[in-house]
Amino acid sequence: MNKIQVKTHSQSEFINITPEVGKIVHRQGFKEGVCYVYVPHTTAAVTINENADPSVPKDIQNELNKIVPWDDHYTHMEGNAAAHIKSTIVGSSVYIPVSDGKLALGTWQGIFFCEFDGPRNREVFVQTIKSE
Amino acid sequence: MNKIQVKTHSQSEFINITPEVGKIVHRQGFKEGVCYVYVPHTTAAVTINENADPSVPKDIQNELNKIVPWDDHYTHMEGNAAAHIKSTIVGSSVYIPVSDGKLALGTWQGIFFCEFDGPRNREVFVQTIKSE
Amino acid sequence: MNKIQVKTHSQSEFINITPEVGKIVHRQGFKEGVCYVYVPHTTAAVTINENADPSVPKDIQNELNKIVPWDDHYTHMEGNAAAHIKSTIVGSSVYIPVSDGKLALGTWQGIFFCEFDGPRNREVFVQTIKSE
Repeated sequence: MNKIQVKTHSQSEFINITPEVGKIVHRQGFKEGVCYVYVPHTTAAVTINENADPSVPKDIQNELNKIVPWDDHYTHMEGNAAAHIKSTIVGSSVYIPVSDGKLALGTWQGIFFCEFDGPRNREVFVQTIKSE
Repeated sequence: MNKIQVKTHSQSEFINITPEVGKIVHRQGFKEGVCYVYVPHTTAAVTINENADPSVPKDIQNELNKIVPWDDHYTHMEGNAAAHIKSTIVGSSVYIPVSDGKLALGTWQGIFFCEFDGPRNREVFVQTIKSE
Repeated sequence: MNKIQVKTHSQSEFINITPEVGKIVHRQGFKEGVCYVYVPHTTAAVTINENADPSVPKDIQNELNKIVPWDDHYTHMEGNAAAHIKSTIVGSSVYIPVSDGKLALGTWQGIFFCEFDGPRNREVFVQTIKSE
């Protein structure tokens, strides 16, 4: 299993991991297939979104904080229920097609690790499968 | 296709299906690959989240009920539009890596079938693919 | 890579692409495997939901517009931040099992391309992997 180490510095933070995922795909040396990015944490997530204007991941985080307020009479005693809820809404994995040996992302797309309960040391699992 | 039968008892209910999915993966007998869990229903979903404190799935359900109220001037005549909307927000499938013959879930992660329009008899499809 | 061209006509619009995806799966000629539908855009998404009553996709779009208002003091200058946020909430891909050579969708399920910043010309990538 390929693993990427991610160090987060804020409670909420989106970190572009496209270069690290791209390197893992490149190392496999196949042309056509699929790539999966999996987050083994329950207060974090992974998403694909715009990688050009840094205000986009900022707007996504701010709006998620409005939709799922940090304090909202949750029963989970650890105080981070909002992070768990955002993890379920955004999702624990993404799939990206691999074509011609590279991630077949759209022009503006990047892969973001989504921290919702940082700062923490996190890891991300990356798998690839060749399609013949 | 491997199928898991799930019987739900409430309108909203998260049911831990990790043991059943784990058994299917174990039976395949391969070491490295991927596992998919698919929900063939449009008023249910599947998510990965904390499997230790039962207040976490409870908080997720309660907050989803605030974000998508059961009654909100929907046009769908069957009265369960909120369940359809939550199904799209949470998602109809999850992917989990398989490593060393087992689900490579994080320490706190479990796989939850998400009922949004119960009680009902539901089923879940599980597929695995070996990566050489 | 199999590609489907999608032409959207409104700012928000769900388009049923099940027949096109089904045709691609049929052409592969294998019995058991998986199908992935990937959206290479950052203001669109893909979901699986009810394909019988057209009020269901309408209710989903309307509720998403309440959850993520089009104007909400976003910082992204292009004016379509809400579309980016909805893309992350709904997701950029779906997986569907393939069984007996066909998409193993549930009785009521269809695959919908979700436009959140139309009208535009869009494309969708479809991949399949045979499981032996």
